[in-house]
Amino acid sequence: MTVIDFTAFIGRLATASGETILPYFRTSLSIDNKNARDFDPVTEADRGAEAVMRRLIKQNFPQHGIVGEEFGTEREDAEYVWVLDPIDGTKSFISGFPTWGTLIALLHKGTPVYGMMHQPYIGERFSGDNGSARYQGANNTGRKLAVRRCESLAKAALFTTSPLLMNETDRATFKGVEQHVRLTRYGGDCYSYCMLAAGHLDLVIETELKPYDIAALIPIVTGAGGIVTTWDGKPAQNGGKIIAAGDPRVHEAAMKLLNG
Amino acid sequence: MTVIDFTAFIGRLATASGETILPYFRTSLSIDNKNARDFDPVTEADRGAEAVMRRLIKQNFPQHGIVGEEFGTEREDAEYVWVLDPIDGTKSFISGFPTWGTLIALLHKGTPVYGMMHQPYIGERFSGDNGSARYQGANNTGRKLAVRRCESLAKAALFTTSPLLMNETDRATFKGVEQHVRLTRYGGDCYSYCMLAAGHLDLVIETELKPYDIAALIPIVTGAGGIVTTWDGKPAQNGGKIIAAGDPRVHEAAMKLLNG
Repeated sequence: MTVIDFTAFIGRLATASGETILPYFRTSLSIDNKNARDFDPVTEADRGAEAVMRRLIKQNFPQHGIVGEEFGTEREDAEYVWVLDPIDGTKSFISGFPTWGTLIALLHKGTPVYGMMHQPYIGERFSGDNGSARYQGANNTGRKLAVRRCESLAKAALFTTSPLLMNETDRATFKGVEQHVRLTRYGGDCYSYCMLAAGHLDLVIETELKPYDIAALIPIVTGAGGIVTTWDGKPAQNGGKIIAAGDPRVHEAAMKLLNG
Repeated sequence: MTVIDFTAFIGRLATASGETILPYFRTSLSIDNKNARDFDPVTEADRGAEAVMRRLIKQNFPQHGIVGEEFGTEREDAEYVWVLDPIDGTKSFISGFPTWGTLIALLHKGTPVYGMMHQPYIGERFSGDNGSARYQGANNTGRKLAVRRCESLAKAALFTTSPLLMNETDRATFKGVEQHVRLTRYGGDCYSYCMLAAGHLDLVIETELKPYDIAALIPIVTGAGGIVTTWDGKPAQNGGKIIAAGDPRVHEAAMKLLNG
């Protein structure tokens, strides 16, 4: 089994999950006469998309493991394990903002070797394999992703999904970094990491991440030349407190502030 | 001159501005070999788009006034005045996030009578004339926009672009509202008002808005059945501290907290 085969297969997973999710996005726009039925579009979309991806994986790679947000873990000790988050950015999704994405990661012996972020409403995909990373637009245009240089925190643009998601101690630590950067912006979810990989921002700092929130983004950021670790410098694929930077100088400076 | 004519003309303004702006969006993705030339993509895009819209307005309606972010004010006492913001959501734009928009408003005797928000990268338009509001997608699908009901603050989803944009007093007042709602989300710009109009969120509270940040959004929110005022209940088209709500009960409850 070559890496090429997995790449094409991840594209199939993305297409299938996107087709499952889209009918649920902006449902108050798409359903003119609402049914009285009380349903939660994001949960339905999340479960439907994870189910369709699990089915495809089991059909094609029955020996692989699967970790998903909705349906738990199967064969997590397998050589290859898929880590799935059908809708990263739930709050964006339910608010009609298109800045959510489907995260698909492939782990080999515990290390993320391929990752994709797919935004089916806009029609764009960001993918990486640690060695390189690519953008693919709706019109099938493709480009290489590369982080940008940033010599210091004072010149860095910092993103986090929301300081409100942090506990009090972590929020104070985060604020300690925030006061040193050029620009802070909230509300990013998976898009922050992809825009870091594309060279549009310099630093992402978050807490309380689950493995499926970050696993797919690591090969993208790393493939674009960036760095993703935990706040204490360990591999990021287990989630927790995460820092991602495009330039090692920004990573190092932020790490000093995060750790003391 | 009928309203129908203006509607078609606003569509032309949106198309022309979108074509001008898009080449500058995500430039580090679209320029593989960067020129050494040091330029500011958002300023270039902003100025180019406003210039092209001003040219079309002067060609077609030479007697109309124009207020724009980049090139100031002309004939602001005219019966009809256009209010233009080529890129609302500058921080999103420079960070590669697609949640910015082009805002085009038409004022009649000082009152916004037609407004459009255009997102050319995604290919979607939100428009309204106070009486009704519409969504138009990339595939030329169109739908009516309508706010959703929300009986209380405790059930409301609240949006603001960033509390960091507020002065200290306003931020404390905002936090007083924030602690009563079900969900808060940062980072919206013009999209928050459009998603309010589309029935995906319930409340937007902001400060320091310029007339061109809000004028186009008023006929959209109002046309979808919502309310937009200043924090002290006055018309919103001059900007300042703004509150927009889908349900009058949420507007009233938030106004009480904003005004002490």
